[in-house]
Amino acid sequence: MTSVQEKIEAANQLVCKRMMEAEPVLIDVRKCLDVVPGMLQNMILHSGPPITWDRMGQPQKNGILGAMLFEGLARDPKEAEGAIRSGKILLAPCHEHSTVGSMAGVTSASMQVFVVKNQAQNNMSFHQIFEPGENMFTFGIYNEKILEDYRFMNGTWAQAMAAGVRASGGINLRNIIARALTMGDECHNRCGAGTYQFTLELIHAMSEAGVDAKMLGLFARTAKEHPIFFLFLNMAAAKNIADAGHGVNYSTVVTALCRNGVDFGIRVSGLGDRWFTAPAPEIEGLYFSSQWGKADASPDMGDSSITETIGLGATVMSNAPALLQTVGSTLEEARRYTQEMYELTVTKNPNFLLPAWDFQGTPLGIDIRKVVQTNVTPIIDTGIAAKKGGFIGIGLCRAPMQAFQKALVAFGEQYLGDADSGKG
Amino acid sequence: MTSVQEKIEAANQLVCKRMMEAEPVLIDVRKCLDVVPGMLQNMILHSGPPITWDRMGQPQKNGILGAMLFEGLARDPKEAEGAIRSGKILLAPCHEHSTVGSMAGVTSASMQVFVVKNQAQNNMSFHQIFEPGENMFTFGIYNEKILEDYRFMNGTWAQAMAAGVRASGGINLRNIIARALTMGDECHNRCGAGTYQFTLELIHAMSEAGVDAKMLGLFARTAKEHPIFFLFLNMAAAKNIADAGHGVNYSTVVTALCRNGVDFGIRVSGLGDRWFTAPAPEIEGLYFSSQWGKADASPDMGDSSITETIGLGATVMSNAPALLQTVGSTLEEARRYTQEMYELTVTKNPNFLLPAWDFQGTPLGIDIRKVVQTNVTPIIDTGIAAKKGGFIGIGLCRAPMQAFQKALVAFGEQYLGDADSGKG
Repeated sequence: MTSVQEKIEAANQLVCKRMMEAEPVLIDVRKCLDVVPGMLQNMILHSGPPITWDRMGQPQKNGILGAMLFEGLARDPKEAEGAIRSGKILLAPCHEHSTVGSMAGVTSASMQVFVVKNQAQNNMSFHQIFEPGENMFTFGIYNEKILEDYRFMNGTWAQAMAAGVRASGGINLRNIIARALTMGDECHNRCGAGTYQFTLELIHAMSEAGVDAKMLGLFARTAKEHPIFFLFLNMAAAKNIADAGHGVNYSTVVTALCRNGVDFGIRVSGLGDRWFTAPAPEIEGLYFSSQWGKADASPDMGDSSITETIGLGATVMSNAPALLQTVGSTLEEARRYTQEMYELTVTKNPNFLLPAWDFQGTPLGIDIRKVVQTNVTPIIDTGIAAKKGGFIGIGLCRAPMQAFQKALVAFGEQYLGDADSGKG
Repeated sequence: MTSVQEKIEAANQLVCKRMMEAEPVLIDVRKCLDVVPGMLQNMILHSGPPITWDRMGQPQKNGILGAMLFEGLARDPKEAEGAIRSGKILLAPCHEHSTVGSMAGVTSASMQVFVVKNQAQNNMSFHQIFEPGENMFTFGIYNEKILEDYRFMNGTWAQAMAAGVRASGGINLRNIIARALTMGDECHNRCGAGTYQFTLELIHAMSEAGVDAKMLGLFARTAKEHPIFFLFLNMAAAKNIADAGHGVNYSTVVTALCRNGVDFGIRVSGLGDRWFTAPAPEIEGLYFSSQWGKADASPDMGDSSITETIGLGATVMSNAPALLQTVGSTLEEARRYTQEMYELTVTKNPNFLLPAWDFQGTPLGIDIRKVVQTNVTPIIDTGIAAKKGGFIGIGLCRAPMQAFQKALVAFGEQYLGDADSGKG
């Protein structure tokens, strides 16, 4: 008779096998309402686990107000807030709609989204298209200039990308990530190699699709000025891979790590769509100006830790040493983080090799049992939003242990009935 | 009274200061005959130190024959060879014309060249523009298809680049190299990060200059397909930096390492334009197919070791670990090479920082005294040409000690007269 222990091992192997088979490809750029499952005209998606308006932090609130003005769902912030409180506007986590969102994670019905398809298992993932600036909805800022930028971006800019992506027959994100890992990206806060590769492929495709030279030049300039561009595709690809492993009974593998600026939430493959939460941690980091410090910083926020969920980001920062100075870390520390992650995970991903680790694969499949046992949680590198809104720094934090402990308790409750019968 | 020892130290510091100040910027794309100093209609430039036609290896001969057909200097190889033997066609090293050339290094009068200017000291350097294939003149291959490619490349392709470079006001190569070193390039056999950055900047500039979308798309595709593209600009930039330090009396710093497939030659800052040569070494490497081996390989060839001359290339391969498998090396070995190079050089270059070495600068200023003293010569990573022509592998070799010994003897002869008077 198979013991629970054996069932768990088999389930975790299956989850990792599916994650390794997953092959995320960007297949289209489309309007959110038309492609994101369960999306509604009067719905705004946000990052992290579910949260009510009243508990929400100011940067995320600001992002939502900005999105409502962009959508024409309200004439001013006061009306917008009234509509949310009255229930006319619905708030929901990106993650519950196959979507991820950076920082505030604000995604609304008429925003254009990247459409990513896993060629192996056919599951879809989404992220709204790039915001070509830093102080945007996602960092809790909105104003007339930003609304104007959103209109341009979701109009001709998105149309040009859509034309290119369709003409290309799909842009393979797994290949781009694999190569980016040989070029100093950790694929969360350092994304230049992904951005450059992706943009060149996109420019070639757009030229084939008949997009004009001026627009091609704009994409080239954007890639140089905003090397973070590819983060949103790293995130959509990571979500695509993580979801490929979600929903396997008996698996103790984590399939989402995310934060809304108040709560940190995790999901586990064998525990369905439940969230296990704990307070979002503070970030230890470097600020862009001496005028800012910890007192100004929002706690950890955003779905970008989906990259760490599948073993990218801070967990492999030791393979991207140029990032270390930016986040205030050292090579020695970074190597310890990677080593820890190898101890928390089920296997190594042969699709993503780390040159600085003698071409070993990235750590794959965070096991909540190992996290609780070793008393070590995954490390995350992340942007810092100001409490008032704005992008003020970059740093590191740890996923909170409490979330993993709660998940392990829930796992025991759900599966220990079976365990009894298998014990004899 | 200043001792010879002190004069040497001061001279070497000056050489390195000039090299560190040097700021190579791509300012134009022009016809070789119009810009390369001393170039003649009936002259063909080649890589490495001077060599006669009879002693020349077959790949370099083939490249020269191809270039003569391209120039219309002969109707067929036989006529071409006759013209060379009769002295109607002159052969000269690229290096003696402020130019460098990859592999065979063949550069002829009507070929378009990158024009690189050192913004600090105003010296100029040149390299013929990219050959968008691998089996070209430079690897000792010519045929009708290749001649056709050269016509296209030196026509509309070069015109588009020229328009972009002029519109940009100059593309700063030092900045691109600095960033490439944080993205896994060692800037000799791994150049993808440089290629991607450069191409995006160029595409943006070309779009401003009114180049059409189809051509922009072609550049984007070429960058993806030929990540080696930027090597020629790395080489021109390195030549620009090395020449900034050339010609300082009493300096024992090497300002050129190059090979013509038969001889390996070095130049030293304090020894004028003399070459010190030794037989070109064999390359230890990996072949692209099992049909090839050492017996098929030309000895070391090309001016690309100008990158190692200024402390890039194999000497810092430990900072570009993704290259290691390609050349058949290991991280441990590569770190030893970098450590050796720190011991052979005068200083560290603060313009080029190595993340994998805790952001220390690249080793700068190879001192022939230290080379001879430690009995260690610089390591070089390089492409392997077949004896018959063709690109068949990549590997590593050592600069031959004999060249450094000869240079040190010459240095003694030239400067020891002074030494006697300073000894008291």
